[in-house]
Amino acid sequence: MGSHKYIELMTYSEVVAVSGHVGHFKVKIKKKARYVDETKCTGCGTCQEKCPWQADNEFDVSLGKRKAIYTPFPQAVPNIPVIDCEHCAYFLKGKCRACEKFCPTGAIDFEQTDQIVEVQVASIIVATGYDIFDPSPITQYGYGRFDDVITSLEFERLVSSTGPTGGNIVLKDGSKPQSAAIIHCVGSRDENYHEYCSRVCCMYSLKHAHQIKEKTGAEVYQMYIDMRCFGKGYEEFYKRASDEGVNFIRGKVAKVTDIALSEEEKGKLIVVCEDTLLGNMIRVPVDMVILSVAMEPRADADEVARLFSLERSADGFFLEKHHKIDPVGTMIDGIYMAGCCQGPKDIPDTVSQAIGAAAKALALITKGKVEAGAAVVGE
Amino acid sequence: MGSHKYIELMTYSEVVAVSGHVGHFKVKIKKKARYVDETKCTGCGTCQEKCPWQADNEFDVSLGKRKAIYTPFPQAVPNIPVIDCEHCAYFLKGKCRACEKFCPTGAIDFEQTDQIVEVQVASIIVATGYDIFDPSPITQYGYGRFDDVITSLEFERLVSSTGPTGGNIVLKDGSKPQSAAIIHCVGSRDENYHEYCSRVCCMYSLKHAHQIKEKTGAEVYQMYIDMRCFGKGYEEFYKRASDEGVNFIRGKVAKVTDIALSEEEKGKLIVVCEDTLLGNMIRVPVDMVILSVAMEPRADADEVARLFSLERSADGFFLEKHHKIDPVGTMIDGIYMAGCCQGPKDIPDTVSQAIGAAAKALALITKGKVEAGAAVVGE
Repeated sequence: MGSHKYIELMTYSEVVAVSGHVGHFKVKIKKKARYVDETKCTGCGTCQEKCPWQADNEFDVSLGKRKAIYTPFPQAVPNIPVIDCEHCAYFLKGKCRACEKFCPTGAIDFEQTDQIVEVQVASIIVATGYDIFDPSPITQYGYGRFDDVITSLEFERLVSSTGPTGGNIVLKDGSKPQSAAIIHCVGSRDENYHEYCSRVCCMYSLKHAHQIKEKTGAEVYQMYIDMRCFGKGYEEFYKRASDEGVNFIRGKVAKVTDIALSEEEKGKLIVVCEDTLLGNMIRVPVDMVILSVAMEPRADADEVARLFSLERSADGFFLEKHHKIDPVGTMIDGIYMAGCCQGPKDIPDTVSQAIGAAAKALALITKGKVEAGAAVVGE
Repeated sequence: MGSHKYIELMTYSEVVAVSGHVGHFKVKIKKKARYVDETKCTGCGTCQEKCPWQADNEFDVSLGKRKAIYTPFPQAVPNIPVIDCEHCAYFLKGKCRACEKFCPTGAIDFEQTDQIVEVQVASIIVATGYDIFDPSPITQYGYGRFDDVITSLEFERLVSSTGPTGGNIVLKDGSKPQSAAIIHCVGSRDENYHEYCSRVCCMYSLKHAHQIKEKTGAEVYQMYIDMRCFGKGYEEFYKRASDEGVNFIRGKVAKVTDIALSEEEKGKLIVVCEDTLLGNMIRVPVDMVILSVAMEPRADADEVARLFSLERSADGFFLEKHHKIDPVGTMIDGIYMAGCCQGPKDIPDTVSQAIGAAAKALALITKGKVEAGAAVVGE
């Protein structure tokens, strides 16, 4: 995609103003200084090897470290690093420039500044994604208080071969868990946080259960309200996880505690929940607790909505033009949207919607002209 | 859509042969004789009024009647009727022709014959839809044996203002139900029939519950395994139905019977099921039972797959090129698919996918040329 002749990628950039109307939008984009000349950099990685400064790796949800000059995540497109001024010794103390010294193509450029670029476009697709719910406010789950209560995203990095542990599922002390509990609907289907269902958690929770069993052989428990395996092949995967011996407990978790009531619970995290099928409270002692956290609108959704004159639905996501017949349109002609900025959705549904949004934009362009009287943005 | 200058609709037609490859498909289409000249008919409806012959209305799942000359469903595009030879007196007995006599534009043409048309197309989108599961084999549910055990599709017609009762929800004897049970997962999530989840039944069952409460005030029970309210606004609708007083019973239904064990059960249909939350068997006497039947691949899926060289997944639906990154593609370049022929899905997801498939076809055409070496169909 990065090398397609009709696609111009502007990464590390941000839209700062939009005006005009369908067919004729003017978009101001801030290209942030990355201090690396994109035309010279070959992505060889020498600068990152030589950089002596470190910071928390955001992509690994701070579970690992990265350098002050770094590529944000594996397989980034384009494969060009950026200097993080807040952790770079040259920006902080005025000396180092190790990256510059070792760069074989002379691509490091400490003189770069942010630039404002203006482009004219016929249509716009908003695909700003989502944030994940921070489970800290649900204090009874102990996130932040117990080392081995982690979020599903943290688990995702833990199990990834490019993650901080090289794909080993381990507890904070480095040991292998012998049991794990996966708690569904953390922040979803909860009137105190988000009333909506986040649509993807059941399936990634099943995947996580399968990965734990496969990689560690640990006993796995899933505490759920409803198993929502609605997509193609999903119910079949649920059955497979069940056949693999994953324990399904239907019920809402009351709390996670380390106060043991028996010998067997000592040194464990105890998940206390109502088993609605048994009809009573149960205590499940485990080594690791994974919280399947909700998807939520991005923190900057308000700002982005204002910038593009979008409306938002009651759940905070961007509002589609018509729920059934125009799920990729917005109230502004020529502005479309795709993916989780419109609401939680999984990869196949996101890809279908994204192709759809591209189709709408393409149809508009091939048409060659647009009707007058369209809504105007930012003027 | 019917009047768009770049769209040629061929209704009442059937693809009979496909050959060629991406960019150059030859498609043979059988245009079935409708015995009405499309260029002359204005859709005034006089022929249907005057026709003295009736047949079961397939669109109303045989709950109502239609004439021998008829428009298959309300808002059909184009709004032009067709003569059903199997019920037309002229075709059966050689006389009548009332439609011809009364047609103000002379559009009736008994001399029409089936025609084979050949078209050249660059790409093809397969969107053949689905069939609904016939619940008769699940004999314990009593479909076909008890008048007031109906399918969700029959209920859909019953509640429609264009349906056989004008939108009145009534029992077979014409009276209003005072209670109804909606049984989920009939033919879905069932190893004896379809292992997969049909994705849409939970939500239409909630809609049906809401409609019954609103239109009749009846007591409504839903027997479900998991409530799968995954889409935008779906969980909120579930909560609303719950607030309206719909009774949710988590459990698989064992049988529907008319053998009363108490005074209160007399004259009722009794739904016998395990309430997995209470942990025991319960008996729910109701007036009407609605079976939320599965979506399944069309009966002619094998034939269509052969015609277009499509593959089928284990569930019998057509196989997409890649589940995540190409959900609208097939193994044959230039042939795409959309909607339920690929797997059960609801309207927003179908529309997104359909726009996506159109985009793929459009992208191919605007490209102007295709790479050599593509897979060939039917040669």
